[in-house]
Amino acid sequence: MTPTQVILDCDPGHDDALALLLAAGDPRLRLLGVTTVAGNQTLDKTTRNALRILALAGVTGVPVAAGCDRPLTGELTVAEDIHGESGLDGPDLDGPVGELSGRHAVDLMHRLLVDSAEPVTLIATGPLTNVATLLTRHPEVLPQVRRIVFMGGSTDRGNTTPYGEFNIVTDPEAADVVLRSGLPITMIGLNVTHQALATTSVIAEFRAMNTRPGTICAELMTFFAATYLRVFGFEHPPVHDPIAVAAVLDPSIVHTVPAPVTVELTGTHTRGATVVDLHARTGLPPNADVAVALDVPAFWNLLLTTVRQLPIPTPI
Amino acid sequence: MTPTQVILDCDPGHDDALALLLAAGDPRLRLLGVTTVAGNQTLDKTTRNALRILALAGVTGVPVAAGCDRPLTGELTVAEDIHGESGLDGPDLDGPVGELSGRHAVDLMHRLLVDSAEPVTLIATGPLTNVATLLTRHPEVLPQVRRIVFMGGSTDRGNTTPYGEFNIVTDPEAADVVLRSGLPITMIGLNVTHQALATTSVIAEFRAMNTRPGTICAELMTFFAATYLRVFGFEHPPVHDPIAVAAVLDPSIVHTVPAPVTVELTGTHTRGATVVDLHARTGLPPNADVAVALDVPAFWNLLLTTVRQLPIPTPI
Amino acid sequence: MTPTQVILDCDPGHDDALALLLAAGDPRLRLLGVTTVAGNQTLDKTTRNALRILALAGVTGVPVAAGCDRPLTGELTVAEDIHGESGLDGPDLDGPVGELSGRHAVDLMHRLLVDSAEPVTLIATGPLTNVATLLTRHPEVLPQVRRIVFMGGSTDRGNTTPYGEFNIVTDPEAADVVLRSGLPITMIGLNVTHQALATTSVIAEFRAMNTRPGTICAELMTFFAATYLRVFGFEHPPVHDPIAVAAVLDPSIVHTVPAPVTVELTGTHTRGATVVDLHARTGLPPNADVAVALDVPAFWNLLLTTVRQLPIPTPI
Amino acid sequence: MTPTQVILDCDPGHDDALALLLAAGDPRLRLLGVTTVAGNQTLDKTTRNALRILALAGVTGVPVAAGCDRPLTGELTVAEDIHGESGLDGPDLDGPVGELSGRHAVDLMHRLLVDSAEPVTLIATGPLTNVATLLTRHPEVLPQVRRIVFMGGSTDRGNTTPYGEFNIVTDPEAADVVLRSGLPITMIGLNVTHQALATTSVIAEFRAMNTRPGTICAELMTFFAATYLRVFGFEHPPVHDPIAVAAVLDPSIVHTVPAPVTVELTGTHTRGATVVDLHARTGLPPNADVAVALDVPAFWNLLLTTVRQLPIPTPI
Repeated sequence: MTPTQVILDCDPGHDDALALLLAAGDPRLRLLGVTTVAGNQTLDKTTRNALRILALAGVTGVPVAAGCDRPLTGELTVAEDIHGESGLDGPDLDGPVGELSGRHAVDLMHRLLVDSAEPVTLIATGPLTNVATLLTRHPEVLPQVRRIVFMGGSTDRGNTTPYGEFNIVTDPEAADVVLRSGLPITMIGLNVTHQALATTSVIAEFRAMNTRPGTICAELMTFFAATYLRVFGFEHPPVHDPIAVAAVLDPSIVHTVPAPVTVELTGTHTRGATVVDLHARTGLPPNADVAVALDVPAFWNLLLTTVRQLPIPTPI
Repeated sequence: MTPTQVILDCDPGHDDALALLLAAGDPRLRLLGVTTVAGNQTLDKTTRNALRILALAGVTGVPVAAGCDRPLTGELTVAEDIHGESGLDGPDLDGPVGELSGRHAVDLMHRLLVDSAEPVTLIATGPLTNVATLLTRHPEVLPQVRRIVFMGGSTDRGNTTPYGEFNIVTDPEAADVVLRSGLPITMIGLNVTHQALATTSVIAEFRAMNTRPGTICAELMTFFAATYLRVFGFEHPPVHDPIAVAAVLDPSIVHTVPAPVTVELTGTHTRGATVVDLHARTGLPPNADVAVALDVPAFWNLLLTTVRQLPIPTPI
Repeated sequence: MTPTQVILDCDPGHDDALALLLAAGDPRLRLLGVTTVAGNQTLDKTTRNALRILALAGVTGVPVAAGCDRPLTGELTVAEDIHGESGLDGPDLDGPVGELSGRHAVDLMHRLLVDSAEPVTLIATGPLTNVATLLTRHPEVLPQVRRIVFMGGSTDRGNTTPYGEFNIVTDPEAADVVLRSGLPITMIGLNVTHQALATTSVIAEFRAMNTRPGTICAELMTFFAATYLRVFGFEHPPVHDPIAVAAVLDPSIVHTVPAPVTVELTGTHTRGATVVDLHARTGLPPNADVAVALDVPAFWNLLLTTVRQLPIPTPI
Repeated sequence: MTPTQVILDCDPGHDDALALLLAAGDPRLRLLGVTTVAGNQTLDKTTRNALRILALAGVTGVPVAAGCDRPLTGELTVAEDIHGESGLDGPDLDGPVGELSGRHAVDLMHRLLVDSAEPVTLIATGPLTNVATLLTRHPEVLPQVRRIVFMGGSTDRGNTTPYGEFNIVTDPEAADVVLRSGLPITMIGLNVTHQALATTSVIAEFRAMNTRPGTICAELMTFFAATYLRVFGFEHPPVHDPIAVAAVLDPSIVHTVPAPVTVELTGTHTRGATVVDLHARTGLPPNADVAVALDVPAFWNLLLTTVRQLPIPTPI
């Protein structure tokens, strides 16, 4: 089977880091490029973190490009309370990292799409600023986008505001552009990601791998657990972003339903909420496949299996 | 024990009907008056329905007054798809009914509050138009209001729009007035009322009472079940409004947490959402006790026990 | 000719004071009642000011009732920077005043409308809280309202915010209720009232009357001039409110055009703006007659003539 | 004196055409490039119109690049009722035109800014989509932007909605990005452009030039006059866009004041309004120099003089 060609746009971030490891390590995906965006931390930090995680995974030859350093409108508010000062607090990630592409993320995405022999799946695990800018700036490449799978939003409650999830609240206009693009879209919201909890036994499995990637994952999740306990009172932290990658690798892992999804842009208390009409109350046509259920054991099995095989051996 | 003095402001409506029966039939409450508002149906229909349900319960001597026939701003949209053309479709409710008070609902509430020797609990199971108008028009009676317990809103999803519940969406400004009044408030939202499902066995228990009220309740719930199956795909219909009455009768039936609740007034897709900050993300002070859990068996036990004892025998 | 029956709802206020004098003093109007609302100052102050001005005019026998002490939603912000601590700073208005009606303003308006043999014109020169509450609470009296003439809004710039005029910004929802009532409405906005400037020669004419009302008017306008110079850099202060009365007395004084007028309720920077569609760009039907030109000399002539004849001689 | 280096971003459009002629023909400006955007008409039409006008002016060697074909969010609504089906209805503009640059407008602006030895003034006479995308995508070139002078918005009434001007209403988010960029900005709004009326005598002066550019200008203005009479009832049409160019050529032509300008993004009836705080009511710091007066004779003299000298003789 030909691997699925993907570009991962991310803002690592603890759970982005797991998404990167999954996207880099599973042979059923061909990771054409990694692009970074401001979100969980400032652009320079999320970019450095992406390079560190790729080095950890043993990935070479995948171009990495930094993109937008702020949302389309308004100021950037990073999630330092969740991801720490580096954006990836917890483990020691020192060590040599690869080089950054000279291109802007939007240019790299554009180039990879134009050069690809077949349509490419965009996986986005941060604010959608880069993806929206790509669609605005290069509308002619839309046919080369097979699907956009993003982690963001929720069908019920949010995490940054009562109804707003961090990635969408950070750049609501970008999410609006993406959701109105007419492209095939899969939304992986908090309603499913809050089921993928890094329990003590999951963390133990990472640690028991006795590999540097396994140990780092255990340390990332341990830091994340402390954060979620303090901020949200969660017993175990949810692992949002790798579910977006898993949904591309194995669509049976999430159950989706087609539904109209709009982004609230004007609400005083709800700006950035994804308004998902599951009961056809609005009369709008569906514009996204919205994840409503997750096969939790299959997800963890997939993620653990992939991380266990890391790092990717350097070709001789 | 002295009964708790209550006024019930409602827009019957199938589940309002059960709320009325519970408020009228449980001796631990003293029902000072019933006021009606436009909501599930037009004011004339909700008023007529209130009179019919009180007659069914055998209630005499409780004044009934009709109130506002439209929301504070905007047009009225009734829930005919849910409650039918009469607002109480299903059973045959023909028969003699009591007389309507000559007063406006707001005047009746005002009068009952002024005349009461002790503070009164307002239970509202419809749009909050009457209650808001009372607070705006007669601010001097606020100290006579012990608490406002309303059925409305949600901590997660809505029913009329993705994030909007019918009572609040119908008159968001009124809900805003109530929630910013500074009075003690209990919010009974869909997040708990969707747990109180009129299952087949519940309906069977109503029917087995072999009383007119029991049979009518069974027929109301049978109609409601068909509605909820058709519109929302629910297997069993939720019974929202009597939970607000139950929460006054026996506070242990719902678990509440103090939380900041704001009403979204300006959202394009979220107008009328109740934005409940359960994780202290907004920095606002709590202004309501928000129900987050329901003791389902205790609730049904309370409701069934009360309806079983109806109708109230006419004094000789 | 039968006098036109009017009720004046106001929040004096320097220019409200002139409106009151005009409404009380011109025999072509029959002033059925005066109602007060919170706005330029708190309700107790605007009410006291109304009583003082009526006493100054020599008016007896016109009932005065205090109404709503805050807007329908949100908090009251008074215009102390414009009207001073008393709401009527400048002249010494000490002296005996009449008694307040025991009724609420909304009740008084309701009663006067019900009792009137013919429809009554409501003139509103403050926030529209009382008028909106009347319409919401007593929809059955709408046929008794001949027309609502209000001073408020603007077809172009505002005074409280760049596009918002004080009366409408203070209670936008109330203005929305009034403008969507379907009643005949005349809007007297800043676009015309900013043409009625109390120049030095106008103030001199008031002073030259050598009557207590004339002197008080001169002192009120002198205070107002200092305010407008300081806050807005105006050379002479505009006299807003009496134009609403003048427009009832002599419709030829303002030129109006029928136009759709909506109130912006959701704008972040424009809440409370009156959006007047003079060029049929919105496709909405006209709901108000909007003043677009003022016969300035005729207006001043009318006002000066009336004040010159004050106070009204007490009947023996 | 060194000419001022400018880039003109436009959507011709009748008045854009005059702006182009002025920017191309006055030797005090050095026109580095012309970029086009969707607005008055679709991108392909505004681009073709820009090429036609440059050919008419005899301009060669100035690169022209097409940019964004839709606003940042939402759908494009063109002004076909104002500018006709071609975007430049009226004259016969057939004839050979120059070639389009292969670059996207944003890339061309970026390249010209990077390559310029000194900061460049951006003149924008259409929706600000290209300019905003430049600022978002290439924040590192901000120091190369000397100033952004845009025609758009208003300090009082709009033309597309009661408070909204076409360029800003077409892409409010883009205007928001520009106005919050921190760059020096001059806003040329309808409040001044509505004073620059192409009267019958102005049109006669164009015609009397007896040159092709003069005749075309006369025909453009004649068409525009018919439009403005029909849609707005104006006796003579306003000539908006060349004032932005004139303000760069000779700053004494407009009088500006520093003021806070925000774009209303959330208003139901006012979306896209520029909210200009001329009286320091909002407490916000100034972010633009806002034109409040126009030297009308000087403006027409400048424009007529420049057009009279066209076309620019082709170098031998």
